[in-house]
Amino acid sequence: MSELRQTAKVVFQPSGRRGTFAIGTPLLDAARSLGVYVESVCGGRGICGRCQVSVSEGQFAKEALTSAANHLDSETDAERRYRSLRSLDPARRLSCQAKILGDLVVDVPTEAQTNRQVVRKRAEARAIEPKPAISLVTVTLEEPSMETPRGDADRLREAVAGKIAADQIALDPTLLPQIQTILRKGSWTVTAALHHDGQHPSEIVALWPGKHSRAYGLAVDIGSTTIAAHLCDLATGRTVSSAGTSNPQIRFGEDLMSRVSYVQMNPTKLPDLTRTVREAINALVGKLVADVGAERADVLNAVFVGNPVMHHLFLGIDPVELGGAPFALAVSDALHLKARDLALELNPGATVYMVPCIAGHVGADAAAATLSEAPGRSEEITLLVDVGTNAEIILGNKNRLLAASSPTGPAFEGAEISSGQRAAPGAIERIRIDRETLEPRFKVIGLDEWSDEKGFADKIDQVGVTGICGSGIIEAVAEMYLCGLITEDGVINGAMMERTPRIVANGRTFSYVIASEGIDISILQTDIRAIQLAKAALYAGVKLLQDKLGTDRIDRIRLAGAFGSYIDPTYAMVLGLIPDCPLEGVAGVGNAAGTGARMALLNTDHRREVERTVRDIEKIETALEPKFQEHFVNAMALPNKVDPFPNLRAAVVLPESSGGASGGPEGGRRRRRREGR
Amino acid sequence: MSELRQTAKVVFQPSGRRGTFAIGTPLLDAARSLGVYVESVCGGRGICGRCQVSVSEGQFAKEALTSAANHLDSETDAERRYRSLRSLDPARRLSCQAKILGDLVVDVPTEAQTNRQVVRKRAEARAIEPKPAISLVTVTLEEPSMETPRGDADRLREAVAGKIAADQIALDPTLLPQIQTILRKGSWTVTAALHHDGQHPSEIVALWPGKHSRAYGLAVDIGSTTIAAHLCDLATGRTVSSAGTSNPQIRFGEDLMSRVSYVQMNPTKLPDLTRTVREAINALVGKLVADVGAERADVLNAVFVGNPVMHHLFLGIDPVELGGAPFALAVSDALHLKARDLALELNPGATVYMVPCIAGHVGADAAAATLSEAPGRSEEITLLVDVGTNAEIILGNKNRLLAASSPTGPAFEGAEISSGQRAAPGAIERIRIDRETLEPRFKVIGLDEWSDEKGFADKIDQVGVTGICGSGIIEAVAEMYLCGLITEDGVINGAMMERTPRIVANGRTFSYVIASEGIDISILQTDIRAIQLAKAALYAGVKLLQDKLGTDRIDRIRLAGAFGSYIDPTYAMVLGLIPDCPLEGVAGVGNAAGTGARMALLNTDHRREVERTVRDIEKIETALEPKFQEHFVNAMALPNKVDPFPNLRAAVVLPESSGGASGGPEGGRRRRRREGR
Repeated sequence: MSELRQTAKVVFQPSGRRGTFAIGTPLLDAARSLGVYVESVCGGRGICGRCQVSVSEGQFAKEALTSAANHLDSETDAERRYRSLRSLDPARRLSCQAKILGDLVVDVPTEAQTNRQVVRKRAEARAIEPKPAISLVTVTLEEPSMETPRGDADRLREAVAGKIAADQIALDPTLLPQIQTILRKGSWTVTAALHHDGQHPSEIVALWPGKHSRAYGLAVDIGSTTIAAHLCDLATGRTVSSAGTSNPQIRFGEDLMSRVSYVQMNPTKLPDLTRTVREAINALVGKLVADVGAERADVLNAVFVGNPVMHHLFLGIDPVELGGAPFALAVSDALHLKARDLALELNPGATVYMVPCIAGHVGADAAAATLSEAPGRSEEITLLVDVGTNAEIILGNKNRLLAASSPTGPAFEGAEISSGQRAAPGAIERIRIDRETLEPRFKVIGLDEWSDEKGFADKIDQVGVTGICGSGIIEAVAEMYLCGLITEDGVINGAMMERTPRIVANGRTFSYVIASEGIDISILQTDIRAIQLAKAALYAGVKLLQDKLGTDRIDRIRLAGAFGSYIDPTYAMVLGLIPDCPLEGVAGVGNAAGTGARMALLNTDHRREVERTVRDIEKIETALEPKFQEHFVNAMALPNKVDPFPNLRAAVVLPESSGGASGGPEGGRRRRRREGR
Repeated sequence: MSELRQTAKVVFQPSGRRGTFAIGTPLLDAARSLGVYVESVCGGRGICGRCQVSVSEGQFAKEALTSAANHLDSETDAERRYRSLRSLDPARRLSCQAKILGDLVVDVPTEAQTNRQVVRKRAEARAIEPKPAISLVTVTLEEPSMETPRGDADRLREAVAGKIAADQIALDPTLLPQIQTILRKGSWTVTAALHHDGQHPSEIVALWPGKHSRAYGLAVDIGSTTIAAHLCDLATGRTVSSAGTSNPQIRFGEDLMSRVSYVQMNPTKLPDLTRTVREAINALVGKLVADVGAERADVLNAVFVGNPVMHHLFLGIDPVELGGAPFALAVSDALHLKARDLALELNPGATVYMVPCIAGHVGADAAAATLSEAPGRSEEITLLVDVGTNAEIILGNKNRLLAASSPTGPAFEGAEISSGQRAAPGAIERIRIDRETLEPRFKVIGLDEWSDEKGFADKIDQVGVTGICGSGIIEAVAEMYLCGLITEDGVINGAMMERTPRIVANGRTFSYVIASEGIDISILQTDIRAIQLAKAALYAGVKLLQDKLGTDRIDRIRLAGAFGSYIDPTYAMVLGLIPDCPLEGVAGVGNAAGTGARMALLNTDHRREVERTVRDIEKIETALEPKFQEHFVNAMALPNKVDPFPNLRAAVVLPESSGGASGGPEGGRRRRRREGR
């Protein structure tokens, strides 16, 4: 047939990412090497079926390639077995099985990525005093008469205004066609949903005949990876249902910047990114209201938070300006909108409040987390960190509050790590290494038992061990450091090969093998470098804000987000991810952005509060600060080369060689001098 | 073929009107007898082609009839000629030619009714001081910087607010996706269209890069028959283009009440009526902007007036409540809306102001006419009358203003009159009858010459004499009365047959033949009765308001609308259509509602003025007033049985037998006593 070739070109759609691969490379590996996110739960064993893709047939002039199904190796036994057990579209292949034989255009379908993700954004139990933007007002009107020929809508507006002692009340125009029917159906007694937030003209946004008592609100945190939505009872303030889903925009690029690039390369596809996230939210709403036996029409108000790119894409705004300096936001202030203008399927009159963004890299999610953790209400100096592809950092107290963003990259989320994966069943999330034997024990998501506990061996086949997620990587690197497997400079110590067969040589560097049955899970030298870069960026950002604030003291550290909730603060401090602080002052606060969104949903005073905070907070752009680079370099070592970490040292025995071990500022200075080497 | 029958059932779609007709009846006649409006310009001669219809084929269980093309008589010579000269869809017939042979379902197409209508709603020349809701503000922003990471939209809002010394300015959310592109395209200089009406939160509704100076507004009067639209330059206040079209809703019912019934019978068709009028307006806008070389996006604000049914249908509101007591309006107050929410194709951010309605029968058109004629600004007592199917009557001065509606019926518009037709080429609009010979001379629309002038005979074939329109009927009846052809009680005097062959007997009544070449145009006794009923209703309404106001005096009479502009005030007074008043105080004011709409468009103070007027005006419901019936009965005679008409009498010699002729209140009382007969 075709001439024997060594390599082939592969283009993944819709992201358009392309690369050249050795013949025989599995498609899933090719996708991952290009940063194209394809879900895989079973670790490439052809079991989970999540990694399905299809191949476009045809000539692609622009790519100078011909794509066809026979450019893939024939079906494997695993695929045949999968087809025999489950339904698989004949046009689809499992990308972990299908190997590249020739040029290909591969389409990654949406549904391959939107399931099974462990959505680690639950509503925290927090009582929020309700003072919602929506209240229900039941009024009884006089019947219309020829003597007073005023419109039914106007008499309704007057009656509602009378009930709340307001001057004037507007009426959502979508109600006009229904108002007479509703009034007559209710025999002139109706319940109006009134939007009054103390800032915009009060407005009747919904109307029911007779009495009506159900009024729900929606709080949504649109993350790059995960969308979390909470349905709240606006009268009681209680969260009655929560649900999450993967952000289907992942199809267009795994991380923020790849989505921005996608829009930049394909400007006509912007509406697709916007539609896809709105559809996902609409689907979540359907689930939430079904959970509590309510209807979409009972949802009257919604609050959205998200990072600036998610915020803009949700609003249909091209995020391209956020992709480069000066990272100009199209809009940063809070917005009051109609849900229908965002194609949201709630009550037709439902209103939307968009939490304001702080800066081009510090979004409405950080603003909401700040609202939730309220560093500005206390004398204590609080550090609030939300780690994602960027780490958002808030530092200060009631006197002064600062915000910055640090480019940590995706390593903390398991990306750019050889065995890394997202938090999903089968991912190693906890790890301990025996100080003597250097043997690891670990825990995987989806199984309660640790790997050395009874029952693990019997159950592990249900989920498999598929990779290592963010919290697992942190613990692995920290444990390796604490065991002396890596030096303070982050180098895997080859001499340890003498003590354990788990240290193996890979050319000039070494790696540590955590598991080797079925799938090989190791920590490579490059993995440790990626973690070092990420943690140094985070630490440098914090240090910069400490400089600005003029204090070394931190009383509380709040770790927000999925990552922050699952990492052990001690290990984070061992790595020098966060600065020293009394360990009891460090806490994961879960989805603080989601909590902040619920607060803004349930109490309009909180909206004013977050608007004030966003206005007053000092925005520090790390890229403009020469000292950031210096802090970054100093923070590459473990824990780092500057700080004495007295609180950490009181809790954990650090290896003797450790950078900060000798304590005191002198140690820091000595390290800095050594930089010259 | 089928058994010989005497009659057949005919259903006209989409109105659903049905009736039973003698075999051989032309379809056009059948349509007219049911009040189904089918345009006909040539008077049924098969020339104009306007009266095209098509026949649905099939079994109609609900109607228990079978409709088919062969239930119509075969094509006439006139139709064949028309087909040979112009294009005629093979499925179409000319309804003036096609005669009923069997049961039929007839579809009246839209376009048959939307052309050639003489749109008598021109913009009156009136200077209106501009103080529009929209102003253009050009601002230059600082480029965004990392130091001040505020959103571009927010910095724009601030800059515009600074220019007009406003606290805060909102931004239409549809601008969000474009704002960054526009700012960069204009190199940080942009022009914003700002909506600030002193009542709603100020809002940027449109944005252009650099400087922009074009800002247009749209003023529309939605009449049941005619839609008139004016494009105005918002900066200068000048009307730059005007256009009119027939209201395509006529397809669903010729007059207001038949459209209300249509919706009542076919509730699911409400959106069709709404869409059809909005589409007609969009088409008018296209024409208006093309006229001046502008774009739809240059139209930033629009004002609409119309009677309550038109107002509701335009807004998508079911008008069914307006069809019966208590004639409850869904909404009467002024409305501030977005044009896009009404599917209007203007600038996407354009705003709409709906002029308020006064009462269930006295709409925003009457409110706008009141704004235009401003009876409330003067000491003089003004009577403002707008005649349509209902006559809207406003009476009063600066101290007190009253409003009512009188059910005149459609006679003044040429409907329910045997030879009546709408104002279109070929319609008799003026008529004089020689006092001696009793010979008529007349003028038709579309021809400058009177019928007895040189040139008329040569040119009349171009337009034909097709019927008699509203103003022609008024003059015909008034002239017949002045000649003694009819008595003060409105009876055609059969004795006059001795003096003229134009009086002919029809059974027990008589008629007066105006023209008999080609088409017979006569005034029948029933025609005079219809005019008497209409004029009595109008007069009774006026009289009722005079009672309420407690005065017989009227200083000025303003006749608004198409009818009011074309009738001769003297003839109107001879018929007793309007009360006595100095003749120089009577004036037609053209489309006062359209003028009022332009005033509200161009100056927001006028919006506040019309809102005040509508709030303060006393609404009188004639149906609730026992005296209305008494006034109505007294007003049936010519001019009427009560009033002395001193001003009229000074100008015109009334027939000696005339009711009010003996003058003075005694005359009035004597007449009233004579009622007992």
